[in-house]
Amino acid sequence: MRKISFTLLLWCPGLLYAQQPVRYVKPIIGTEKMGHTYPGATVPFGMVQLSPDTDTIPYELDGKYNPDVYKYCAGYQYTDRTITGFSHTHFSGTGHSDLGDFLIMPTTGPLQLNPGTADHPENGYRSRFSHANETAEAGYYKVKLDDHDILAELTATNRVGFHQYTFPSSGDAHIILDLMAGIYNYANKNVWTFVRVENDTLITGYRQTNGWARTRTLYFAMTFSKPIKKYGHRNYANDVYKGFWRKFNQSENFPEMAGRQIRAWFDFDTKAGEKVKVKFALSPVSTDGARRNLEAEIPGWDFEAVKQQSQNAWNKELSKVAVKTIKPDDLVNFYTALYHTYLGPTTYMDADGGYRGIDQLNHTANGYTNYSTFSLWDTYRALHPLFNILQPQRNADMVRSMLEHYNQSVHKMLPVWSHQGNENWCMIGYHSVSVIADAIMKGNIKGYDAMQALEACANTARYKPYDGLEWYMQMGYVPEDKNGSSVSKTLEYAYDDWCIAQVAQKLGRQDLYKEFIQRSLNYRNVFDASTGFMRPRLSNGEFRKEFDVLSTHGQGYIEGNAWNYSLYVPQYPAEMISLMGGRKQFTTHLDSLFTMHLPDAFFAETEDITRDGIIGNYVHGNEPAHHAAYLYNWTDAPWKTQERIRMILGKMYKPAPDGLGGNDDCGQMSAWYLFSTLGFYPVCPGSTEYALGSPAIQSATIQLENGKTFEVETVNQGEQNVYVKKAVLNGKTLQRPFIHHEDIMNGGKITFYMDRRPTK
Amino acid sequence: MRKISFTLLLWCPGLLYAQQPVRYVKPIIGTEKMGHTYPGATVPFGMVQLSPDTDTIPYELDGKYNPDVYKYCAGYQYTDRTITGFSHTHFSGTGHSDLGDFLIMPTTGPLQLNPGTADHPENGYRSRFSHANETAEAGYYKVKLDDHDILAELTATNRVGFHQYTFPSSGDAHIILDLMAGIYNYANKNVWTFVRVENDTLITGYRQTNGWARTRTLYFAMTFSKPIKKYGHRNYANDVYKGFWRKFNQSENFPEMAGRQIRAWFDFDTKAGEKVKVKFALSPVSTDGARRNLEAEIPGWDFEAVKQQSQNAWNKELSKVAVKTIKPDDLVNFYTALYHTYLGPTTYMDADGGYRGIDQLNHTANGYTNYSTFSLWDTYRALHPLFNILQPQRNADMVRSMLEHYNQSVHKMLPVWSHQGNENWCMIGYHSVSVIADAIMKGNIKGYDAMQALEACANTARYKPYDGLEWYMQMGYVPEDKNGSSVSKTLEYAYDDWCIAQVAQKLGRQDLYKEFIQRSLNYRNVFDASTGFMRPRLSNGEFRKEFDVLSTHGQGYIEGNAWNYSLYVPQYPAEMISLMGGRKQFTTHLDSLFTMHLPDAFFAETEDITRDGIIGNYVHGNEPAHHAAYLYNWTDAPWKTQERIRMILGKMYKPAPDGLGGNDDCGQMSAWYLFSTLGFYPVCPGSTEYALGSPAIQSATIQLENGKTFEVETVNQGEQNVYVKKAVLNGKTLQRPFIHHEDIMNGGKITFYMDRRPTK
Repeated sequence: MRKISFTLLLWCPGLLYAQQPVRYVKPIIGTEKMGHTYPGATVPFGMVQLSPDTDTIPYELDGKYNPDVYKYCAGYQYTDRTITGFSHTHFSGTGHSDLGDFLIMPTTGPLQLNPGTADHPENGYRSRFSHANETAEAGYYKVKLDDHDILAELTATNRVGFHQYTFPSSGDAHIILDLMAGIYNYANKNVWTFVRVENDTLITGYRQTNGWARTRTLYFAMTFSKPIKKYGHRNYANDVYKGFWRKFNQSENFPEMAGRQIRAWFDFDTKAGEKVKVKFALSPVSTDGARRNLEAEIPGWDFEAVKQQSQNAWNKELSKVAVKTIKPDDLVNFYTALYHTYLGPTTYMDADGGYRGIDQLNHTANGYTNYSTFSLWDTYRALHPLFNILQPQRNADMVRSMLEHYNQSVHKMLPVWSHQGNENWCMIGYHSVSVIADAIMKGNIKGYDAMQALEACANTARYKPYDGLEWYMQMGYVPEDKNGSSVSKTLEYAYDDWCIAQVAQKLGRQDLYKEFIQRSLNYRNVFDASTGFMRPRLSNGEFRKEFDVLSTHGQGYIEGNAWNYSLYVPQYPAEMISLMGGRKQFTTHLDSLFTMHLPDAFFAETEDITRDGIIGNYVHGNEPAHHAAYLYNWTDAPWKTQERIRMILGKMYKPAPDGLGGNDDCGQMSAWYLFSTLGFYPVCPGSTEYALGSPAIQSATIQLENGKTFEVETVNQGEQNVYVKKAVLNGKTLQRPFIHHEDIMNGGKITFYMDRRPTK
Repeated sequence: MRKISFTLLLWCPGLLYAQQPVRYVKPIIGTEKMGHTYPGATVPFGMVQLSPDTDTIPYELDGKYNPDVYKYCAGYQYTDRTITGFSHTHFSGTGHSDLGDFLIMPTTGPLQLNPGTADHPENGYRSRFSHANETAEAGYYKVKLDDHDILAELTATNRVGFHQYTFPSSGDAHIILDLMAGIYNYANKNVWTFVRVENDTLITGYRQTNGWARTRTLYFAMTFSKPIKKYGHRNYANDVYKGFWRKFNQSENFPEMAGRQIRAWFDFDTKAGEKVKVKFALSPVSTDGARRNLEAEIPGWDFEAVKQQSQNAWNKELSKVAVKTIKPDDLVNFYTALYHTYLGPTTYMDADGGYRGIDQLNHTANGYTNYSTFSLWDTYRALHPLFNILQPQRNADMVRSMLEHYNQSVHKMLPVWSHQGNENWCMIGYHSVSVIADAIMKGNIKGYDAMQALEACANTARYKPYDGLEWYMQMGYVPEDKNGSSVSKTLEYAYDDWCIAQVAQKLGRQDLYKEFIQRSLNYRNVFDASTGFMRPRLSNGEFRKEFDVLSTHGQGYIEGNAWNYSLYVPQYPAEMISLMGGRKQFTTHLDSLFTMHLPDAFFAETEDITRDGIIGNYVHGNEPAHHAAYLYNWTDAPWKTQERIRMILGKMYKPAPDGLGGNDDCGQMSAWYLFSTLGFYPVCPGSTEYALGSPAIQSATIQLENGKTFEVETVNQGEQNVYVKKAVLNGKTLQRPFIHHEDIMNGGKITFYMDRRPTK
């Protein structure tokens, strides 16, 4: 971990109160190592993520997966010394990737259309840069491109990226549009690209890719603040049919370009200090949609005004939680985490509501905002529950978006991991049902029909071709010999089924309740009493003999070993504890998880976990055990929850580029931070209950959308004082370490009385 | 030439009169050798051309152009003995190709997904067939597929192909949808394909290609008359990213397929004699568009009724010209030619008017029918002039379609050779302006603004990057050292410019008239008095020294040698004749053209001409000299026009599979036949004048759209009596061998008095 200085931080000694919380957001956090965040400019839930990419690593080398590509899930690695350009779409914190669409790079000097290498940036269009000349804020990014003597500034609205490039005096100034560049750039990922030079300031086009999203097209409209002097492109694809287009000189000033591998350039003369600005709008539907988005969102050329507008939008959303802390770093951690949770799901529709569905047809979102980028295996845990408190309207629209996905799905399945008109099927489970159940059980039913949502959940959970589901439905578990990661799948299906049952019960559908409450007990079918762990079982009914409780690979798990995954029965923690030998034995078991020593081999074989992301054998860098530290609340030692939570908060979240202990996973890691910092956590989304932990703030005031206010207050909180002596809700001392959703949404106050010694 | 029997022909001895002209249409004519017509089912100007393909020849072998592909421009060669399947889009008579979308093949027995070879059809899904078991009619095609014991029948509406397959008893009956198949199948022509099994009878999807059309997507919706038993597909593309789709068994009963190279199969059980029917709708916009087209055009399953409807549509259009002839073959030739002229331009919009423009955006055609497939270098000569008589409403809509193309064009050019939302830039000139001028000068201005059309013509003619045009505008000719085929281009630009000038004069735009009438004289700049031929000139002003008046290749011409192309000044025939030494010398020159003997080497090096398409050195199989035989009308020997025309009619058009002397070229060759058979021809489209020739019928009555009737009558016409003694128009003997467009459109009668001896 490397500390960086935050020159913009202003605070008075003692308590800090965030009046302009945007000042505490440090998008650079998580951009080193495994965080996979991006430092560029975007607005809350914005469609455009305009951000620097520091390398263009191919997905494969010699036909095989290139492990280096993994570092560039979000396009940027803090330790890199060159920037290849600024592209308009980025995931935040994912562990697989895509996007990086429409890379723009301003250069001076002789035109170079290849990106060059990190070692020899002078051989290409990329540029050296230094963090000393770099500023990353919410909604604004600035960097000096040393090789070209250009100051690059970026800001954005929802659908438009706004570039401002301050050039030196040059008769040879270029703006490159590299349509070959992309993130996770599989060799044939570009299916087709198309560019039209509509006039001397307006360019339109699209990029169609076959990557994580199998059939994705994104359209653009780009406009320059001054007329192009000349322009051209090179087509690097030998496999494009040239036909009678040969009769033209297409390489210069020819207004229509198409092919699989294209790089275009636009030339200008610039005076010293001249600002050339670029507005770059996206659309999921058409180049016309992009043009309309451009006109609707940024009609003028005032970069400062758009930057201010973007940061105002951030202030508005971030201010909904007013936090007081002792240390400024805590404010930075808090508001950066809140920032990271508001990066997605992203808006996925034009200003007029048009978007492309997974049926490859164009649709119009009427009366709601359509969202995409649903990393549901991650985000059902804490992110969507957080939204049910802080962003209920948006979360209801996200549910609506998932239901529209379902309507368009030929499989009749809710999204598993979806982005931009595609289902990419990543990870396991059908956790849309958890998100939907959590919203319905918490009364957040707006703009969608709960009964239809229940039907969608039930049909999703019955889609037999999906990932061992037919076996699960037949046998009560996924047999490892039929379908890998079988324990993880069985446990998660059972939890999801419990969610469906809750909704069925609430809506009076006893038939569905019975069906799915029965299925929710299936976790029992993979419990091996002989070892005390959940264990892969075969189709003959026997447990598989080979069983390594530390390893993840090929052991029946995914992103977690038996130690972590065996705890995954969030719907029935008490029953699980009883199965595992009772409260006392379970407490010891949990203690071991957090304290045992792991061999080095463990880290060598695990993809996105380093020692940074692990405490003992507890893996915080991946999600399956995110609820684990709260399980002490179901034992006789809730004080251990309080202790562990504070330890995790301290170890896993630091205000530095490498400050995140694992992929932020579209905000799930940050949502964990926010809940835990505020002192409560949704161990089982789909229930209305939150387990209490140990708040790490002085106070927090949450402005709810319903006009009410919920306040978290601590007394005697401090770095040593991590134990809760008592918690008082609206004047009443709590007898159990739990609160309910209505306690929050009805408004009021919870006060935690803290102590340096546990209350045993 | 091989004669075939036309069993459906019924006639009474003596004069023949076509009450049901569809009976005389033989779509098999032109399917052998160079005709490049297709025998399948379509309706007049229909979007669907559902026709058998007899081979799937790749565009290239070992990375090089495969000359064999040329035979399969329309997918079918009469001499072939196997059929690979039935695809839904075909050009008629082109000399370059594309399409062949969505090949369907019914099979029985073990599933074979590769097409097999002509030598070993048993190794694939293709089938042997025999012409004895084949029927090709207007709007209906039938063939027995011997290897599978399946009777295949096809018919069509505008946007829907209707298949009826009579199966034997089989537990192993398949219908294959081969998305890899296509015409002119360049190795990477498939950009992307997509298939959704919506339910057990409905399939939707699309195919996106990079071929002659650079960026083309065609959508479909297919429905079966009985539920699929099971289905599946194979993806032959190794370069498609598989990602997390691996978690499914996608090969069977998986409803979403996508990739670059896909073949899908649908299985049925069939009883002996059971008919399985397939309705296959196309759309240029979306799968939803295709579904709506399907529902709008063929709601039911009555194959016979749809066949009848299709043939009624043909009867209606063909009956507009009621012809009497002596020989039945002449009726077959006439109505088959008329049929061929009505195959295109093709409808290019959904039932609701939606279509994809060349700007890659979706548009709606309001108040007109949008057409595509404009083979303008061919069709401006006689096809569109023919439409100004027989199909003025459609021709006005075609002009409107070209103007919409212009509006959407980033080049601001009218179409050169366009199909399905693409400009393919084939051949030379900007002959849209001829089609537009011909319509405007003939008063056929409906649904478009003539002044805007004029602007479009002028801007098109000024687009400098196009094909030597900048040089032409600077120097008055295209210099051969700067841009090949320079003589052809100079001559055709000059003619096109004359067309623009005519419209400018008519609309009172003297500025444009002056500009373009000046340009129309540019033909003079390539005339070489020393040889008497048009000759390639260099940028230094000199004629190029090397000059072979017989060769086409590299001589400054395209699809025609100096002998043929030097006659191409249709706007000023008298001036050209004067330039070439006067009427007498010119007559001798023209005589030589028709009588000289060509060396074998000439044929060896010429792509789509065989001896069949040539008389002396006169090339009828290509277009540049199509007006040549009429030029005698400007000399003292119009009788030679009469003689030559009848000779060409007799030699170049025969009622047999190999009966066409060259590519039918989207109806241009057939339009020449129709005009010439009726006794007049538009030597210079854009003027309202027709040169008279020698009618080869007894009589013809043309029902005009304006309600009037124009009658062509002959007296004493016969195989020997090819000379016109006198021609009488509405009772007045003509003094010159010309009539005007208004003479026709005002209704009336022209009587040709024929003789076996010329009137000198």
